[in-house]
Amino acid sequence: MIISTIEFTASGSVRILDQRLLPGEETYADLNSVEEVAVAIETLAVRGAPLIGIAAAMGVALAVGKLQVAGGVGRDDVRRVVAGAIERLRGTRPTAVNLNWALDRMASVAASADADSMFDVLLKEAKAIHAEDAAMCRRIGEAGAPLVKHGATVITHCNAGALATGGIGTALAPIYLAGEEGRLATVMVLETRPLLQGARLTTWELARSGIPCTLMTDSMAASRLSNGDISWVIVGADRIAANGDVANKIGTLGLALLAKHYGVPFYVAAPSSTFDPATATGADIPIEQRAPEEVGRIGTQRIAADVPVWNPAFDVTPAELITAFITNEGMIEVDEVPGRAVTRSGGRDSEGSGWYGGKAVGR
Amino acid sequence: MIISTIEFTASGSVRILDQRLLPGEETYADLNSVEEVAVAIETLAVRGAPLIGIAAAMGVALAVGKLQVAGGVGRDDVRRVVAGAIERLRGTRPTAVNLNWALDRMASVAASADADSMFDVLLKEAKAIHAEDAAMCRRIGEAGAPLVKHGATVITHCNAGALATGGIGTALAPIYLAGEEGRLATVMVLETRPLLQGARLTTWELARSGIPCTLMTDSMAASRLSNGDISWVIVGADRIAANGDVANKIGTLGLALLAKHYGVPFYVAAPSSTFDPATATGADIPIEQRAPEEVGRIGTQRIAADVPVWNPAFDVTPAELITAFITNEGMIEVDEVPGRAVTRSGGRDSEGSGWYGGKAVGR
Repeated sequence: MIISTIEFTASGSVRILDQRLLPGEETYADLNSVEEVAVAIETLAVRGAPLIGIAAAMGVALAVGKLQVAGGVGRDDVRRVVAGAIERLRGTRPTAVNLNWALDRMASVAASADADSMFDVLLKEAKAIHAEDAAMCRRIGEAGAPLVKHGATVITHCNAGALATGGIGTALAPIYLAGEEGRLATVMVLETRPLLQGARLTTWELARSGIPCTLMTDSMAASRLSNGDISWVIVGADRIAANGDVANKIGTLGLALLAKHYGVPFYVAAPSSTFDPATATGADIPIEQRAPEEVGRIGTQRIAADVPVWNPAFDVTPAELITAFITNEGMIEVDEVPGRAVTRSGGRDSEGSGWYGGKAVGR
Repeated sequence: MIISTIEFTASGSVRILDQRLLPGEETYADLNSVEEVAVAIETLAVRGAPLIGIAAAMGVALAVGKLQVAGGVGRDDVRRVVAGAIERLRGTRPTAVNLNWALDRMASVAASADADSMFDVLLKEAKAIHAEDAAMCRRIGEAGAPLVKHGATVITHCNAGALATGGIGTALAPIYLAGEEGRLATVMVLETRPLLQGARLTTWELARSGIPCTLMTDSMAASRLSNGDISWVIVGADRIAANGDVANKIGTLGLALLAKHYGVPFYVAAPSSTFDPATATGADIPIEQRAPEEVGRIGTQRIAADVPVWNPAFDVTPAELITAFITNEGMIEVDEVPGRAVTRSGGRDSEGSGWYGGKAVGR
């Protein structure tokens, strides 16, 4: 791991890289209570769905660790603290899937653990969640790295990198592996308005890791694609419907349409747990409208008149625009997505491999 | 005129709206010397090619006006001051076509004017340039307004409005005329990174004029177009090649491609002087690369790591993506652009109406 976004320290704290201060400052903070972990998640000091899950899991272990340091505790105290920590952390980000999944996993091991060994069991589980996420990222990287030919220039959007996960990211994973071997000419990073995750986070982590990258505004994608020097485009995903439609950061749909127009392959990198068989198509994915201030102001600076703002956080890219999915279980062609095959041919459901049902695998 | 971006005051000053302070402050400044006018243009207090031409013309008149107030001047003094003013103003923005055109026009009337009537002659010419520009904007508006059906929602990019011209703008002219009659549901304004002319200037002038508008980031265009409620898209132009290819603010190409994909008409509003018969195709238009700080910082705030930046100021939209041009001489179908007709059929040049050769008309 090149960037350590999170770790459980020897002194029993959760050490995080405070992402609110990037790219200006690389500051690590030791969180010493469940409340501090919760606030770090709520204030986006820690962000990215997989990373939030890891932080929350570590927060539960931390709660018991601090209790044991205090000493003189009974079995009921331990169970009460675990339940309280899980409850507090569950309320931090209501929409993050990984948060609930990680906390459910912690609750499950706590239920069958002995109070005396509770801290060790919880810490082991939190570290396992972290390690599994890192391994999943690496597998995505290995699946995607062969796509990077020598001297390639690729485009990415938003931040689906080390800062969003416990490993080398999802969309950035193939880029890290190929970049370490010097195969990339440059990664064209779209700044990703309104919250500038591309500019603030992706350029920071790539530069920090020695991967060549070049920043551009979202409005420059078409012009750059028309230049003819882009090998492919890669993005992450927030949710993938059963038919292969992808909800991801606003701007992904336009980027996919432009890539299609210019004949440039468009890849979506995601763990198998991002595939949601319960959502039939992209039309069934609710799109969150966020606060107007995100667009009308940058930081504290007002950049527009006081007019209404349209600010969807995500858009939906139809499966037809996606060349393939790069997952921890390998490359998946769009027509191999089970829900899509069912929809289109009606005859593939019996072949369901369950590869996207494994929410507990690697996440 | 709803917004007075520039006027020559009774006391002999050039009064401008300081666009650097928008949208936060609406501050008017009286410029009292050629040097002050020149600095206002250089520092973008006054911007937009047509408006720069008007400001420079008024600056020449101002020079002679101030001289006459001082009194005791000879004929040679007057001619020397006129020549000096023109020289100083010509150097302010080397790339603005209208600047040289307006100053040439002032030099021409000065050459045939008597020293005693010089101020009157120059002021009359400067006011004529202003009035002609305003009339040209209105004609563009009248040509385009019928496109606005009741309840229409349209998209625009950058600022091709009152703040860029001596009138009601180019792309915004049809919007003003239809908006006054309450026909528009809303104008979706793309913020236009990196310099945010859409957010800073277009939302300000539309809100100021009571035209309903809604701000969104450039990355949201595809998502909004996919909603199916956009009637058409309208933009201005910096240069239109003989074959109809359009150089305009970065982001225009992507917007045109997305509009095409969703079957939404895409209009380019421009005065006839923007058509450049000397440039065969868009490939012949040089694209300016601007400073990396425009992307890597917003105001004084650093928003990215210290990495290379790709920052073309313009892109080129192929004529095929344009539904029609809206000009001061009416609507022009793409296939009616003389250079394009020549290129495609080889038989239309004899019909050349000269409608795009009239650089002196209205500008």
